[in-house]
Amino acid sequence: MRPEIQALPGSRIREVANAAMGRSDVLAFWFGESDEVTPQPIRDAAVRSLQAGETFYAHNLGLPELRAELAGYVGGLHGGAHGAVGDERIAVTSSGVNALMLAVQMLAGAGDEVVAVVPVWPNLTAQPAILGAHVRCVALRPGADGAWRLDLDELLAALTPRTRVLVVNAPNNPTGWTLTRDEQQALLAHCRRTGTWILADEVYERLSYAGGACAPSFLDIAGPDDRLVVAHSFSKSFLMTGWRLGWLVLPRGHLDAIGKLIEFNTSCAPVFVQRGALAGLAMAETFVPGLVQRLQACRDRLVAGLQALPGVRAAPAPGGMYAFFRIEGQDDSLALAKRLVTEHGLGLAPGVAFGAAGEGWLRWCFASRDPARLDQGLQRLAGALRAMA
Amino acid sequence: MRPEIQALPGSRIREVANAAMGRSDVLAFWFGESDEVTPQPIRDAAVRSLQAGETFYAHNLGLPELRAELAGYVGGLHGGAHGAVGDERIAVTSSGVNALMLAVQMLAGAGDEVVAVVPVWPNLTAQPAILGAHVRCVALRPGADGAWRLDLDELLAALTPRTRVLVVNAPNNPTGWTLTRDEQQALLAHCRRTGTWILADEVYERLSYAGGACAPSFLDIAGPDDRLVVAHSFSKSFLMTGWRLGWLVLPRGHLDAIGKLIEFNTSCAPVFVQRGALAGLAMAETFVPGLVQRLQACRDRLVAGLQALPGVRAAPAPGGMYAFFRIEGQDDSLALAKRLVTEHGLGLAPGVAFGAAGEGWLRWCFASRDPARLDQGLQRLAGALRAMA
Repeated sequence: MRPEIQALPGSRIREVANAAMGRSDVLAFWFGESDEVTPQPIRDAAVRSLQAGETFYAHNLGLPELRAELAGYVGGLHGGAHGAVGDERIAVTSSGVNALMLAVQMLAGAGDEVVAVVPVWPNLTAQPAILGAHVRCVALRPGADGAWRLDLDELLAALTPRTRVLVVNAPNNPTGWTLTRDEQQALLAHCRRTGTWILADEVYERLSYAGGACAPSFLDIAGPDDRLVVAHSFSKSFLMTGWRLGWLVLPRGHLDAIGKLIEFNTSCAPVFVQRGALAGLAMAETFVPGLVQRLQACRDRLVAGLQALPGVRAAPAPGGMYAFFRIEGQDDSLALAKRLVTEHGLGLAPGVAFGAAGEGWLRWCFASRDPARLDQGLQRLAGALRAMA
Repeated sequence: MRPEIQALPGSRIREVANAAMGRSDVLAFWFGESDEVTPQPIRDAAVRSLQAGETFYAHNLGLPELRAELAGYVGGLHGGAHGAVGDERIAVTSSGVNALMLAVQMLAGAGDEVVAVVPVWPNLTAQPAILGAHVRCVALRPGADGAWRLDLDELLAALTPRTRVLVVNAPNNPTGWTLTRDEQQALLAHCRRTGTWILADEVYERLSYAGGACAPSFLDIAGPDDRLVVAHSFSKSFLMTGWRLGWLVLPRGHLDAIGKLIEFNTSCAPVFVQRGALAGLAMAETFVPGLVQRLQACRDRLVAGLQALPGVRAAPAPGGMYAFFRIEGQDDSLALAKRLVTEHGLGLAPGVAFGAAGEGWLRWCFASRDPARLDQGLQRLAGALRAMA
């Protein structure tokens, strides 16, 4: 086995989940997934496709009609300064994580330098490592209020002409941190000078609680020839985690290369899955705003509950679906998360799962159909705090 | 973009298909896919799963029950010398090509030497190139009868202690060539000495026309700790091309590493797709033998028809679902395939799509529900030969 693969960190979230094996009464908030089933019209569309016998290979890049709809969807959200986004910039992928992997394969080879903003979903730093690239991390920092912030000057100083790719996920998993328009402008201008690609994981863009249809996107300000690749997923906004479908927005002229990479990685996404996604897009503007409203209510309820507990530092995330919080005096997040689940039946993700910068923190996914589950979880946390006091 | 990615060859099959764009009367035999819809019980199982709301993330390695069934299926075919294959050696993947990509990521990094037996499905040589490995090709050779053979001594001489991985696809796409048990024994013994991994693409193992339930497999002779990874797919034996589901058989002790790589590539396969696969496995021994019988009839009909044409060299393939044949005096397979489709409405894959070793040959997928389609295709080829004479 390659040493790079042996050295890849295993999931610390799974390590916590394994520690709870055999306990049937765990309230699990550790995965980045709502507990709501995919909406019926999406499932119905996939069922119809299966019944109609759409069981053959699809085009590498995705169904032409899905790519056209995605171009309209993306252009509708971000067409602003540079006009429509054409489908010659859209490729359908076998999940959001697969979209990111394809982009990394296209951009970062052995020995290349990649800069990543952390803490972050560990897949974003593992992917360049699999390709043999060197990953340098620039850490967000938490304020006394529990909100995480970027030191823009530090990030700009880290991005030099030797930097092939900047990997940035905003709204961020796990912290909820979101790039501002000014920060995006500064990063884009800087990366144009250094020749650095921006790989933007914007899968949480619709889960934005600052008003407006979505969080600021690099697509709002970049031109069609900028070195920008944006990765997207149907998982979060359409409650389609288990479907494994995502897409990439690429600069003009990169579709052939991505088509080849898709061929060599998964060849295509199932047609019946893509039919489900088409049904999702058709209901996007009636469904997504309601989902965001429900998630915002979940966030507010959970964060208020956390803030009311002694020694807990938590801030309402401007985007995403996580509360990332800290308990005073608790610095070993893996040990703490294991203790919470084994002794108190509360399943949270340890901050160290998202890199050393997240150590000491805990991630709580607040995407819950039934907000009472969050209250139950808060009660268990309160009990744990009393027991640990 | 990385130069390695820019240098990846695009699909020559797609180039031919593109040349036919706009012609509605093409008889297409260019893709490696039957024209039969997936069997109803498999589709029904996926439909039930979608209706039951199984739309959440699955385990990285696949549903435990599917892995258990696969272990039984693989062990039933190959348990022989070394006993059962346990599910601690089985990982479910997002297609057969994805299984191969995961194995390559695990084994071959930048600068590593990979030896591939060609002609071969181009994905097998592209994957190590994406990882930055060097691929050396050892070519099968066609006999005067049109059957392809391995020069075992040449292959053994190419495999040195510097060779990290031997990639071999048998039964082979496109030639139908199949490794004998003796050749497998010799390769395994040699690779044990050189420390070389064998990555065996055995997705066509059930499509074997030499008698017996399947073609010789490295799993019949290797132990659970040999450096052997076998890639499999539901696509061919269960008519599930569009579902994108495959699996890997790994040596003991490699499941954690593959689980991490799955997490970072696609995270998991959809549960409802895996439910379909479970239904497929449940009917394997009633369904697959009948499919193989039908394919053998297709093969015999097509090859007899080809052999009856003037100047055509074709042999019945011992395995797989392709006739790989040559027309005397035609050395440019891409030009010929384009001419056949644009002037005669016959869609075949050019041999050069499978590497330089396949140049001058054509691949015809004979997996057809209706054997009369093959006759129609043969008539068109006969017309083309008359026109070119």
